[in-house]
Amino acid sequence: MFTTFRGGQSGSWRVVSQAAVKGAGLLRTPSLSVVYSPSIALPILPSQNSWRLAGVASHVRYVERAEKEKLVAAQADLGRREATCAALIPIKKSQAWWDLTQEERRRIFEDKSHHIAASLKYLPAIARQLYHCRDLGEPFDFLTWFEYEPAHADAFEELVAMLRATEEWRYVEREVDIRVERERLDAG
Amino acid sequence: MFTTFRGGQSGSWRVVSQAAVKGAGLLRTPSLSVVYSPSIALPILPSQNSWRLAGVASHVRYVERAEKEKLVAAQADLGRREATCAALIPIKKSQAWWDLTQEERRRIFEDKSHHIAASLKYLPAIARQLYHCRDLGEPFDFLTWFEYEPAHADAFEELVAMLRATEEWRYVEREVDIRVERERLDAG
Repeated sequence: MFTTFRGGQSGSWRVVSQAAVKGAGLLRTPSLSVVYSPSIALPILPSQNSWRLAGVASHVRYVERAEKEKLVAAQADLGRREATCAALIPIKKSQAWWDLTQEERRRIFEDKSHHIAASLKYLPAIARQLYHCRDLGEPFDFLTWFEYEPAHADAFEELVAMLRATEEWRYVEREVDIRVERERLDAG
Repeated sequence: MFTTFRGGQSGSWRVVSQAAVKGAGLLRTPSLSVVYSPSIALPILPSQNSWRLAGVASHVRYVERAEKEKLVAAQADLGRREATCAALIPIKKSQAWWDLTQEERRRIFEDKSHHIAASLKYLPAIARQLYHCRDLGEPFDFLTWFEYEPAHADAFEELVAMLRATEEWRYVEREVDIRVERERLDAG
């Protein structure tokens, strides 16, 4: 199952800010939509004033058993009604990262950068999903997606700042940070 | 870059045998061709008497630094003129495999199954390339491709038998084994 994020003129999320954190940014659009499809062939050919990024929620690559159990116990699902804030942060890592072997990447990811351990304290407040796209020929390697209540906006800033201060982040060569809020369709 | 294997009526490799080793087989075709393309969208829609399987030559997932150095030093490139025999062995592993964490898969892959160490002795006689396709929504998880001289056919049988006897192989739920020979275009 592919997940496609589409920046365009309409969508269920309203873009409130967008920053090119590292490398080239993305076209600014007023809205973001999220589409699920069984094939990657479907959501091709964006129009001139939109873009599309596709990824796959795949198996874990660095997490070990004890960490997985902690994560599963602590994490929240996407789509919580009260989580009206979200962030799409597409990331591309350098060739140097991908030339590392598995145990070298794991060492930087967790032993030095504490990616898993340090992120745990933000669960379940911040729901997260990682989509892989390096092997899909996409412009980014990962699409990271976070959902949280407005009350946890400060915690989210702290989480993002923490991850950007790690040794792992030195291998990031392109990153865009798009913050969105859920559109209210009901006048309620 | 995507690599697409196409079983059909014509191609640069002639199919000499085909077996459904585990699970469902593939349509038998007289020929196999290999196509490289920058996008996966291209080689879609096979005809009724052909099939297509696409994959990506991605970064290594289990190999550690010392192993990588040994492999790089020993391995041969694809496309050697004298390597007129080849095998395409698409493999799908079970959900139980993918639910394992990284260190659990590595333990089965190498510590118990000696996938890397035991394969090393067949280099450089047998050139190998692994293509990943699980995240592409393909019917298999991997496309494994081997090229060798006719003189090394017995060694190749030994390698395949060795891999199928490992603990790792218990997680294989579908495997097809297609043996091919290079078509001679010149009457020579």
